Amino acid sequence: MTTNSRRQFLATTAAVAATPLLTDLVQAQTPGRKLGVALVGLGSLATNQIAPALQKTRNCRLAGIVTGTPSKAEEWKKKYNLPANSVYTYDTMHEMAKNKDIDIVYVVTPNSLHMQHTLAAAAAGKHVYCEKPLEISVERCQKMIDACKKAGVQLGVGYRLQFEANNLECVRLAKEKVLGDVKIIDATFGFAIGDPTQWRLKHDLAGGGSLMDVGIYCMQTARMITGEEPNWISAAETKTDPVKFKEVDETISWQMKFPSGVIAHCLSTYGANGFRGFRVGTTKGFFGLEPAYYYGGNRGKRSDETEINIPVADQFQTELEDFADCVATKRPTKVNGEMGLQDVKLLMAVYDSIKKGRPVTL
Amino acid sequence: MTTNSRRQFLATTAAVAATPLLTDLVQAQTPGRKLGVALVGLGSLATNQIAPALQKTRNCRLAGIVTGTPSKAEEWKKKYNLPANSVYTYDTMHEMAKNKDIDIVYVVTPNSLHMQHTLAAAAAGKHVYCEKPLEISVERCQKMIDACKKAGVQLGVGYRLQFEANNLECVRLAKEKVLGDVKIIDATFGFAIGDPTQWRLKHDLAGGGSLMDVGIYCMQTARMITGEEPNWISAAETKTDPVKFKEVDETISWQMKFPSGVIAHCLSTYGANGFRGFRVGTTKGFFGLEPAYYYGGNRGKRSDETEINIPVADQFQTELEDFADCVATKRPTKVNGEMGLQDVKLLMAVYDSIKKGRPVTL
Repeated sequence: MTTNSRRQFLATTAAVAATPLLTDLVQAQTPGRKLGVALVGLGSLATNQIAPALQKTRNCRLAGIVTGTPSKAEEWKKKYNLPANSVYTYDTMHEMAKNKDIDIVYVVTPNSLHMQHTLAAAAAGKHVYCEKPLEISVERCQKMIDACKKAGVQLGVGYRLQFEANNLECVRLAKEKVLGDVKIIDATFGFAIGDPTQWRLKHDLAGGGSLMDVGIYCMQTARMITGEEPNWISAAETKTDPVKFKEVDETISWQMKFPSGVIAHCLSTYGANGFRGFRVGTTKGFFGLEPAYYYGGNRGKRSDETEINIPVADQFQTELEDFADCVATKRPTKVNGEMGLQDVKLLMAVYDSIKKGRPVTL
Repeated sequence: MTTNSRRQFLATTAAVAATPLLTDLVQAQTPGRKLGVALVGLGSLATNQIAPALQKTRNCRLAGIVTGTPSKAEEWKKKYNLPANSVYTYDTMHEMAKNKDIDIVYVVTPNSLHMQHTLAAAAAGKHVYCEKPLEISVERCQKMIDACKKAGVQLGVGYRLQFEANNLECVRLAKEKVLGDVKIIDATFGFAIGDPTQWRLKHDLAGGGSLMDVGIYCMQTARMITGEEPNWISAAETKTDPVKFKEVDETISWQMKFPSGVIAHCLSTYGANGFRGFRVGTTKGFFGLEPAYYYGGNRGKRSDETEINIPVADQFQTELEDFADCVATKRPTKVNGEMGLQDVKLLMAVYDSIKKGRPVTL
């Protein structure tokens, strides 16, 4: 699967609502300028998801770019009618401090560059929204949190599913015990990755493989559904292609226990297709989504034969509008740096269990 | 869930094909007497599945019963028109040696009584078909195999899914690499168990909980799909109801690695509903069944949008006809004692990993 086909994989059933939304009405009634967002890193996600989403947001807009590729700079400048002084390279992005058009910096670079670009943005006085995982170590995540705190700017993590109605409906079913008490969470996500030269397969840039990239969704599901933090993790890794996956993990299966006794049974893979959802087992039945983690088309079912299939707007639009509202109204984002750090802490515990060959307690 | 509702759970979508089968034609062409089957243990499975199935088999018939409950003996004698000398208690079943009407003994008693009843049947010169799991320890399984070998009778294990067309179709998809190489198997089975007084929750009789009862299906799936034996197992257990599950396991999540690199990610539970199938991830897509393990109605899908939904006859009828054919023609059964022993060996390795708190190699 190439980078392109990975994007298609995630976007396969992308459903973009064309009907007028409440947000449109709010926009019409809200005077004032849209917040400016600068994108750092113009890869597939920024190109195909985030930039188009920014064209739809009611309260923010694409106001700048940071890229190391001159041809991309030209292309984007033309396509999005950006002024020359809003186009930066990684070496000049500190100059953003002087650019009043930019309020928010959205970091979409490879995982291990998140800290560097977040620190630069915070130093320039910009609020930061950063793609998941927040970074590749707990220490680096903490430095990002500290830098944003010191600069007096917000730090958000791109957990779009925290705003996705079908995922939130499952959280409600769990919390309100609609189908009884939650006992087991089975969450799996993965795909057969293509291009062997991509950064996702390089340890220095990705910090890990399938676990860091897609396993984090299962981690988020388990935390969202239980509302708890795991205190015990046991993990196992397997590699069927040790050449392609020389530097990072191919497939990881792990279990987590929560204080309430709930167990989460999770799997991430770059080695095979077919895993893309979760099922929650309860005392009275079950509920879950498949797909659960796509850019659109997430849907599922409940054991009482009720379908879960809530139409949703563009997920990137929704998360960006929420973060822009947070910045505008000084409301703290719910997808904050601490949430991102906690996931990285748990992912590192998974790796630690594999390394030690035994369960780890937290 | 009571014993009754457990049966309903398994039989929910039971589909019994009413169309004429090839076996019916074979029957019409095959002269000679039907082999006699005696049922040992007249619980829910024998009453609601096996005895009715025996009424439909082309080459065998209900010819005797063994029960410790006089009222059941009377009821069955009347219902199935059994002669008085074909009705035994557990203390008199050795007298079967004199009963030429009985060729096969089907052991349907609680797990830890399988050895005793198999040894008695073999000593009486009868072929033995035994419900899964074969027994509660490797040693006891071995004694059963040895006793049957010594007596010159066949020993079969009630793995009905080894004859179920939808499960076999999945084995074919794996073997012929129809959707590419198998990389990952995710198999889960369980239900929220009812009646806290039932034998399945007593360690002496069951030898274990959800793993022994339903986890064994996931074990069989992993072995059938890969055609391999795992050489590494890591497992974790959780109990949300330590009173009800004082003696046996409630929920177990475990992983197995196979020599080819395939990983199986399995879960068994008595604590929640919603887990009842498997998904196989391959390089090109996926396939799987949900439900996979029911008495009827097993069906599934492939990533290429092909449905897997093959109509099947009564699964107990099919397995009984196969075993009766094996006995009649001296063909060794494919669901033999060694297969049953190997599963018990692997289930014990799962328990061993839990006890040791670390992975075990095999």
